[in-house]
Amino acid sequence: MRILGIDPSSVATGYGILESRQGDDSLVLAYGAIKPARKAALPDRLLEIKNGIERLISAFTPDEVAIENPFFGLNIKTAITLGQVRGAVLVAVAGAGIPLFEYSPLEIKKAVTGYGQAEKAQVGIMIRALLRVDDDNMEEGAADALACAFCHLNTRLGQINLVENKI
Amino acid sequence: MRILGIDPSSVATGYGILESRQGDDSLVLAYGAIKPARKAALPDRLLEIKNGIERLISAFTPDEVAIENPFFGLNIKTAITLGQVRGAVLVAVAGAGIPLFEYSPLEIKKAVTGYGQAEKAQVGIMIRALLRVDDDNMEEGAADALACAFCHLNTRLGQINLVENKI
Repeated sequence: MRILGIDPSSVATGYGILESRQGDDSLVLAYGAIKPARKAALPDRLLEIKNGIERLISAFTPDEVAIENPFFGLNIKTAITLGQVRGAVLVAVAGAGIPLFEYSPLEIKKAVTGYGQAEKAQVGIMIRALLRVDDDNMEEGAADALACAFCHLNTRLGQINLVENKI
Repeated sequence: MRILGIDPSSVATGYGILESRQGDDSLVLAYGAIKPARKAALPDRLLEIKNGIERLISAFTPDEVAIENPFFGLNIKTAITLGQVRGAVLVAVAGAGIPLFEYSPLEIKKAVTGYGQAEKAQVGIMIRALLRVDDDNMEEGAADALACAFCHLNTRLGQINLVENKI
C-alpha cells in the first residue's frame, strides 16, 4: 500500500510518499516541499500547489492520501490562508479519485512519538529515525507530511491485521 | 468588458456574469449558484465547485473575475471552510489565466447602495433594481456575486474613463 502524506502550507506544502512492505519497515519513496514562487499572485500560487500534487500523484500513483486536519489554534487570517491551500490540494486529490484521510496533530504526534503533546522538533527526529532517513536538513513540512503518512499507514495496517485475525 | 463575479460558499457558491455596454446599462448574461451534492465528501464538493467555475469561464469567456474578500468576522472553522472554497475557485481562475480582483464587503455595499453598512437584503434589492433583473427569488449568493461584478465594473469603467480623459 502506497500513501501520499501532505502537510498544506502556503509557503511550503510538505509531501512524503511511504510504501508498506510485507514484514518489513515502510519504505520512503520521496519527500520534499512544493514552494510556489513568492512573488506570484495568490491564484497562481494555489495553482502551482494543485499542479504539484497532481504531478506527485501521477508519478507515484498512491493508493490513499493522508492530510493533517487544520489546527484550530489559528487566527482568522491564517485559517483562510491555510483553507485556500487545502482547497487547492483537495481539488487535486478529488480529481485523481484517491481516497482522503484526515488526522489531527494529536493523532499524528501520538503515532510517531507515542505522546500527543510532543514538540514539533521531536516529531521530525522520531520520524527520521523510524523511517531510517538520514537527512538532518529535511524540511519541517516534509517531516510532517511523512509523519502524517506514517500515522495513516499504521492505522490502515492495524485495521487490515484486525480483519485478517478475524478470518 | 465581461466580468464574472463570484461569491464563494461551501453550500452555494454564487455567480453572476455582467457585460458593460457602451453608453448603456450593464447587461446581465447569467446568474445562479453552484451547489455541490451535500452528501458528497469534502474533496468532491470542492472539485464540483472548481469544475463549475471552469464551465462558466469556458461558456462565457469573462475578461476579468471579481470576488468578495473574506469577511474577517468569521470563526476559525468557517474561515477554514470558506478558505477551502476560495482555494477551489482561485485554482479554476488561475488555470484559465484570467485576472482576479478582490473587493471588501464594504466596497461592494458602497458601490451598490451608496452606503458601506447596508443590510444584505438591501444589497439584493438594489442590485436587482440597478441591473433591471425582475426576479424576487434570486438567491442571496447570486445577488452577492452580481453585486461584486457590478462593483468591479464600476471601478474598471471609472479607471478607463480617467485614462481616456487624460488623453
